[in-house]
Amino acid sequence: MSDPTASSPEVRLAEVGIVLPAVGSPAGSYVPAVSTGDLVFLSGNGPITDGTVIFSGAVGSDLTSDEGYQAARLTAINLLAALRAEIGSLDRVKRVVKLLGWVNSAPGFYQQHGVIDGASDLFAEVFGGQGVHARSAIAANQLVFNMAVEIEMVVQLKG
Amino acid sequence: MSDPTASSPEVRLAEVGIVLPAVGSPAGSYVPAVSTGDLVFLSGNGPITDGTVIFSGAVGSDLTSDEGYQAARLTAINLLAALRAEIGSLDRVKRVVKLLGWVNSAPGFYQQHGVIDGASDLFAEVFGGQGVHARSAIAANQLVFNMAVEIEMVVQLKG
Amino acid sequence: MSDPTASSPEVRLAEVGIVLPAVGSPAGSYVPAVSTGDLVFLSGNGPITDGTVIFSGAVGSDLTSDEGYQAARLTAINLLAALRAEIGSLDRVKRVVKLLGWVNSAPGFYQQHGVIDGASDLFAEVFGGQGVHARSAIAANQLVFNMAVEIEMVVQLKG
Repeated sequence: MSDPTASSPEVRLAEVGIVLPAVGSPAGSYVPAVSTGDLVFLSGNGPITDGTVIFSGAVGSDLTSDEGYQAARLTAINLLAALRAEIGSLDRVKRVVKLLGWVNSAPGFYQQHGVIDGASDLFAEVFGGQGVHARSAIAANQLVFNMAVEIEMVVQLKG
Repeated sequence: MSDPTASSPEVRLAEVGIVLPAVGSPAGSYVPAVSTGDLVFLSGNGPITDGTVIFSGAVGSDLTSDEGYQAARLTAINLLAALRAEIGSLDRVKRVVKLLGWVNSAPGFYQQHGVIDGASDLFAEVFGGQGVHARSAIAANQLVFNMAVEIEMVVQLKG
Repeated sequence: MSDPTASSPEVRLAEVGIVLPAVGSPAGSYVPAVSTGDLVFLSGNGPITDGTVIFSGAVGSDLTSDEGYQAARLTAINLLAALRAEIGSLDRVKRVVKLLGWVNSAPGFYQQHGVIDGASDLFAEVFGGQGVHARSAIAANQLVFNMAVEIEMVVQLKG
């Protein structure tokens, strides 16, 4: 799959107007990312800015689907920040391989896929075809800090 | 681990009488599978036929354990369809490495492992020893489209 | 990241006073671990000793956070037993890459990260810097056998 545009992910990120935040401290005895061979495994991240949960509660009751989508987009920005801190530049990404996203879900809410699209769509904007990934979007009865979403991912680097 | 029989996975699939369906469109901004090196990461799939959820609701209330098992088996067939579409032939599989399965679970239902066996047993039928994998079987309070199960997997290809 | 001490993981495990148990039979049609290339994928494990669930119920109601932490530590010991059975010696580990842990969670309990730290801290004790990993800690409405936690992991071996 080839890049749909000539610009690099770092250029496109700037074009979209996104400034990646500083990487927050992990909430426990772990690190935001680990590289092994050409794969990078990223820890679960959430819709947090400067240590504050921006989207909290269950989608389908406390939050609308669209707010859930925005929560996933913010989570994806935090994942990109953790990724850049690990590898230096997003231009080193060969492929976003796999996302696993959880949605804090009210009873009867069955549109987890539309919520996690907030992250998937951002990766497509930034990485073009290299951003298109395999994925699971799963309901959770609740999440750490009552976050609305949590997403982890696996990325492949260029050789 | 060697194959218990002389026949190939594609031959065995036919012997079991399974015809793989066409691959449905993903319910969101992602693809059914991504290959990286010799690993294939498959997106979460469910008990869907021709775009219709065949097994919906919670196992332990709406559905029996046996219906859950059948839902996992149907999901596994959909995973094989997505895998063949990605790699051309199931005979290229060296090993089914890892399954992660979620079971839409009624309160008090603790037999998620028996449900996901519906997928694991099918992979053993089709791939023999190469189909035996690591696995987690997890309860979910609900799933996308109110599906009874959702399963993702990682497969290793022959060199 | 380099090892903080000169002793090996097997030596440190003995120093901490941990004797790894025999590996229990998987509760279904799967195996405790699968190796592929230099990665080992470990099946979800739980706080079980000699076939008996030692910590059952939901953290935040049936169990305290500290009991949940102890459940995660016991689960990590079972994961190390499964890992050693697969690779022969823990001294072959280059890096603990990724943990995915679920916490059987009472409504309103949002400290899943503190619970899964029981596993993460043990890996840091045994492996030093090589034990520091990426991680997600997720709430579940229930788990197989009503276990308090379930954890799976990915480990990289030395070349």
